[in-house]
Amino acid sequence: MSTLIISNCTEEIVGPLAAVPPEKRASFGWGAQRMLWYARDGDVVILPKQPDETFLRYVTGLTRTDPATLQILTPPPGDFGPDILTPDRLGTPEIVAALAEVAAGRDITDVISIYADTSIARLVREAGCERALAGHAFCAENGVALANSKAVFRAVAAGAGVPIAPGIIARRPAEAVRAIDGLLSSGKHAMVKLDFAAGGHGNEILSPVPGVRAAGARNVVVLTGIPEIERYVQERWTWLTGGRDERFVIERYVPDAVTAYAEFSATDEGCRLRGTGEILMEPVAVGEIIPPQSVRPDVLDRLVRDGHRVCERFRHLGYRGNICADAIVAPDGEVLFTETNGRLTASTHLHHNIVARVVGPQRRDERVFLERGGKLAVGSYAGALDRLAAAGLAFDPATGTGVILTANYVPVSGRATYCVVDKDLESVRATERHVQALSDLAA
Amino acid sequence: MSTLIISNCTEEIVGPLAAVPPEKRASFGWGAQRMLWYARDGDVVILPKQPDETFLRYVTGLTRTDPATLQILTPPPGDFGPDILTPDRLGTPEIVAALAEVAAGRDITDVISIYADTSIARLVREAGCERALAGHAFCAENGVALANSKAVFRAVAAGAGVPIAPGIIARRPAEAVRAIDGLLSSGKHAMVKLDFAAGGHGNEILSPVPGVRAAGARNVVVLTGIPEIERYVQERWTWLTGGRDERFVIERYVPDAVTAYAEFSATDEGCRLRGTGEILMEPVAVGEIIPPQSVRPDVLDRLVRDGHRVCERFRHLGYRGNICADAIVAPDGEVLFTETNGRLTASTHLHHNIVARVVGPQRRDERVFLERGGKLAVGSYAGALDRLAAAGLAFDPATGTGVILTANYVPVSGRATYCVVDKDLESVRATERHVQALSDLAA
Repeated sequence: MSTLIISNCTEEIVGPLAAVPPEKRASFGWGAQRMLWYARDGDVVILPKQPDETFLRYVTGLTRTDPATLQILTPPPGDFGPDILTPDRLGTPEIVAALAEVAAGRDITDVISIYADTSIARLVREAGCERALAGHAFCAENGVALANSKAVFRAVAAGAGVPIAPGIIARRPAEAVRAIDGLLSSGKHAMVKLDFAAGGHGNEILSPVPGVRAAGARNVVVLTGIPEIERYVQERWTWLTGGRDERFVIERYVPDAVTAYAEFSATDEGCRLRGTGEILMEPVAVGEIIPPQSVRPDVLDRLVRDGHRVCERFRHLGYRGNICADAIVAPDGEVLFTETNGRLTASTHLHHNIVARVVGPQRRDERVFLERGGKLAVGSYAGALDRLAAAGLAFDPATGTGVILTANYVPVSGRATYCVVDKDLESVRATERHVQALSDLAA
Repeated sequence: MSTLIISNCTEEIVGPLAAVPPEKRASFGWGAQRMLWYARDGDVVILPKQPDETFLRYVTGLTRTDPATLQILTPPPGDFGPDILTPDRLGTPEIVAALAEVAAGRDITDVISIYADTSIARLVREAGCERALAGHAFCAENGVALANSKAVFRAVAAGAGVPIAPGIIARRPAEAVRAIDGLLSSGKHAMVKLDFAAGGHGNEILSPVPGVRAAGARNVVVLTGIPEIERYVQERWTWLTGGRDERFVIERYVPDAVTAYAEFSATDEGCRLRGTGEILMEPVAVGEIIPPQSVRPDVLDRLVRDGHRVCERFRHLGYRGNICADAIVAPDGEVLFTETNGRLTASTHLHHNIVARVVGPQRRDERVFLERGGKLAVGSYAGALDRLAAAGLAFDPATGTGVILTANYVPVSGRATYCVVDKDLESVRATERHVQALSDLAA
């Protein structure tokens, strides 16, 4: 029994591929190797490129996987080069033939892809292993897009009675202006959100006054009065509508809120909770803490209960696989859901592998996890591992504490992503300070 | 207890409003008066204009409704004039105030609109009667669009295991060309379908050979070889993508199929069958027969069972109100579903009013209904009623047979729409010949 693991990249996640600059593509390519965390003995992994040997050995060492048993496939470079695994690459005769050959020799019983779009459905069908992809027929008709559309989410959440921020799904400039003015002229703030985007990169905050702290979007635009709002909508229309006159969301922005999520695995039997977490927004997602530390237990219960309810709607529609409900928790404890992501998220490898396999389920309730990117600057990934070991900070399977380097972006940005595991938030924060002191940034 | 009846018109039904020529708008305006069939004593009706007196008296006479008890409201003309009830007109302060005043004096417990878009949700909220609109929160977030999108339909049907024609949801020219070529080069035919359109007006049939009979689309385009397909996709791209780079459907076209439907009423309790029918495609919808006469009983059972299954998915998502599952029945009896319409359809007034109220539920299983437009040319609607009466063809409530003039397009096209009611198909056909002999076209 093997799992087919596909580290694909789609426009539904990153926006129009043609607009992704080459250095960003290179960065996505290194990020794509994180899918190795999912691998178990005998699995088949499709990556944009053959992985970095050091990273492969490190990851499989921690997951107790024999890398020699893995079959790693890479299709020829595509329209956007060799760094990202785009839909066109998954449609090449070479990868279809390679997968068909491998599938003939192994019993592939499961498929884990980042985003099960129609190219994934087509690949597994043409390679003869479509039965391994849960919800194949739904994926083949682009059903997964429904579980990732922010506009669809608002309707489904409303139908389920799950709380969302007041707002609208805008399709025409006039209604966008009216909705933004309705919020701003009453002293509130607005967030505009592209229908498809990730990590806050498709969002922008609008405020009638300066000084609002951004969270979940890169920037805050101050707009005073209808003419300024009209000009903003006109100038940003192409961006707001995803370059294709698409609908987008305008909703009330709540400052000083915590962003949290409840992630589930949707199967024929139901949506099973995979875990919860709290996103570090600075001002867009840079990391996360598992479990959430800034949310009261009763609020967390509500997050899980309502998140389960809305994810169940998508499951009932035909969605199978990982699905995550995101919400903001206002300072008064109000929970407002913002979207679902029917794909692997930036959190899934933590719950699925770091929590459940590396640290182990028996310690799940006795550990706090903090993952963060961009803060550990090093000359090489191997060098970073050495520094951690020398400082006594490397993850120790015996104690289930320490620092794991979950992703290697060193070749493009000089940064490695770390995940600190410790007994409580205070210990995690202390360890994180030690790690940051090892960074070239601290020099 | 009053029902609020709104005869609205949206882009999701007719396509971009700016592209609808004035004579077509005038025609839609006369068609809008068909909503009077729904009225019962004390109801509130919002129409684009005050109705024609003769039509009002005729309809209410047959439904045994006192027209003096009806409150008929009309908003000021909108961006597209006075003939069609567009979303902008439903947002005017005048109609909000008028409805609020009426709602304060009557107990409005139900809303029937043609299409419950966000403008309907907003109007009833602002007028203080949103509780009368089932599924209000879902409508307010544009959820109804999900139950009308042909692309969403394919995913939901696939998820429910309901059969659909082989095809794809196209988003890029290259994949459209590949899908069309895949069908045509193997000797099959294709149908391209705009995501949002009605009555076959958003469809086109593509064939590798001349001579295919069109049904469900105005025309057949013959395409030979990839260069011709590429040219077709390029030239038609704006139309195919709804003028806004929208996805569209490409699926296998089955010639000589029957188009049939199963229509349901979705409530908190479930989807209840309203009725079935067979669409007369010449080559687009010109009328229908209730119940279907060209479909075997076992096939009709499958149509109802699978139609129920897919409509239930939309109900579970939050949709409430009328919902219709359309299918084609291939010559070999195979049933392939093509779309759902989460709105009032061209059939609903027949089931809801002509079958259930004018003829009466006790006679439902002993009557065949045939409605057809465009074939009865007359100088005036009143004159047409006189001709029917003089020929002894007027509907007789005592026998539950005869001819009902269900719509009045005489002022724009010189045509009235008739519905023949009789004991069996043979009698219906004989009566229809008599009616057509009364037409100016027969002279």
